[in-house]
Amino acid sequence: MLRFGFDIGGTNIAAGIIDENNRLIAKDSVKFPRGEGTDAVVAACAEVYQAILDRTGAAPDAIAGVGVAVPGSVNPEAGLVIDAHNLGFHHTPLASLLEAALHKPVCLVNDADAATLAEHRIGALKGTRTAMMITIGTGIGGGLIVNGMLFGGGRGNGTEPGHMVLCNGGRHCTCGIDGCAETYCSATRLAKDGAAFGMSSAKDVIEAAKQGNPDALELFRAYIDDFGSYIASIVNLLDPERIAIGGGVSGAGSFLLDPLRADVARKCFFETCPEIVVASAGNDAGIIGAGLIIS
Amino acid sequence: MLRFGFDIGGTNIAAGIIDENNRLIAKDSVKFPRGEGTDAVVAACAEVYQAILDRTGAAPDAIAGVGVAVPGSVNPEAGLVIDAHNLGFHHTPLASLLEAALHKPVCLVNDADAATLAEHRIGALKGTRTAMMITIGTGIGGGLIVNGMLFGGGRGNGTEPGHMVLCNGGRHCTCGIDGCAETYCSATRLAKDGAAFGMSSAKDVIEAAKQGNPDALELFRAYIDDFGSYIASIVNLLDPERIAIGGGVSGAGSFLLDPLRADVARKCFFETCPEIVVASAGNDAGIIGAGLIIS
Repeated sequence: MLRFGFDIGGTNIAAGIIDENNRLIAKDSVKFPRGEGTDAVVAACAEVYQAILDRTGAAPDAIAGVGVAVPGSVNPEAGLVIDAHNLGFHHTPLASLLEAALHKPVCLVNDADAATLAEHRIGALKGTRTAMMITIGTGIGGGLIVNGMLFGGGRGNGTEPGHMVLCNGGRHCTCGIDGCAETYCSATRLAKDGAAFGMSSAKDVIEAAKQGNPDALELFRAYIDDFGSYIASIVNLLDPERIAIGGGVSGAGSFLLDPLRADVARKCFFETCPEIVVASAGNDAGIIGAGLIIS
Repeated sequence: MLRFGFDIGGTNIAAGIIDENNRLIAKDSVKFPRGEGTDAVVAACAEVYQAILDRTGAAPDAIAGVGVAVPGSVNPEAGLVIDAHNLGFHHTPLASLLEAALHKPVCLVNDADAATLAEHRIGALKGTRTAMMITIGTGIGGGLIVNGMLFGGGRGNGTEPGHMVLCNGGRHCTCGIDGCAETYCSATRLAKDGAAFGMSSAKDVIEAAKQGNPDALELFRAYIDDFGSYIASIVNLLDPERIAIGGGVSGAGSFLLDPLRADVARKCFFETCPEIVVASAGNDAGIIGAGLIIS
């Protein structure tokens, strides 16, 4: 059977069909109807769903179900989006609304969990039984594979690795607490630190460091020390087989990964360090992971 | 069938028989033969094993197997103690040595994992599917229950929650890294901080704080802030149903737990906070948990 995946973000709704081999065989996207209410979101989803079916000629009966990734907390059993601030959803019964519109079973998933599932089935975490995905962006997202399955949190709230405390009492986080890993290891941290030296983004800092700019090198060194301690914390708690790093910063490749691996190896409590790799499922990981939720 | 458990520490070897209802029905201990080599340890274990069987009249055939808890890293599949510094064991094939002496199948387990298993089957973590045990002593030990089972680490190395980083670059840890949770949340931290004010142990500091001593109260407040951030890190990563706190410091009861719960609730990313309770399996949790490894 085919599966359909939505990756709903605050800018676009991306969607596609996944085949039996976990491949994305068609995709499309529409603008997220910001500020127009839940009905407009459901209508936009129905429109892109039908457009993809029409284009591919897939029969509605060939679609086993629909997975929906959202940037926020979800209760999959109740079919509720608990909170997705960027979408304006709060205790929104999105699953039943989409089921009524699409005439298919619908399952919700957090977008970081969807990306983790995609990495586990077709990407950098393939073949592992216990592994972690960490996405470095404006903030930090992530997901956890335990015993070969996506771990949705012990109480179903998911995992919020960006809000592990890395420097208690340190930099102020948007969540209200001081010292969260997100304030030290996100791309935003590099951009903020770089601003004092005329660099306006994480990419600028990394490029300048690659060119040997001493200020950028010093910022990057401090970033690696924090990022390494953060990854070491996860390693020392869970002893995972592999950790995949995604998001824009991971585009730095070995310039980031080599010093990061060395730092984690030094701080890892165990005799050997888990593999640390760049995520490989790509920009469509959200759509694919959403589809993969449908078994 | 009955099960036999050993809890081997650097001072004593404690042992006992566990019945079908997970109750410790007989126990005994002998001095750990420090510096006398592995053969002396095996002989001491065989001696206490026979003494308990003789005293209870249990037939050797009634013992299904023997679980052995050690303070260090183990490879249960290979039957090896990888490193247990306090016992002088390094890559020691303890399981096969004990099997030859006791004529029973032997399974090794880390002592913190054994205590966690005891809490899960008969203590404060009973009934949970995802939970964490944290033991606060000279250092910090702990164990993790995931999906209703003891989680032995993704690569089998166990869990070392004391070496999550809480204040990157901060207080120096015995492991060589600066800022481990152990240096902020162990009893040793309270004792070290208290020394400047003439208090010689964690217990002294807590007693003085209870009496309203302003220096002790300030130290205790700072301790709760660090301990709360540490527990919140675990909560935000794993969303467990319940966390049990063991070790000497947990004897402070609600004087510790009430402010700790309030601090974690403030730092928890989710709408509700997991339960935080005092461990209840008692001083024999290591023996019982070792026995419970035998299924």
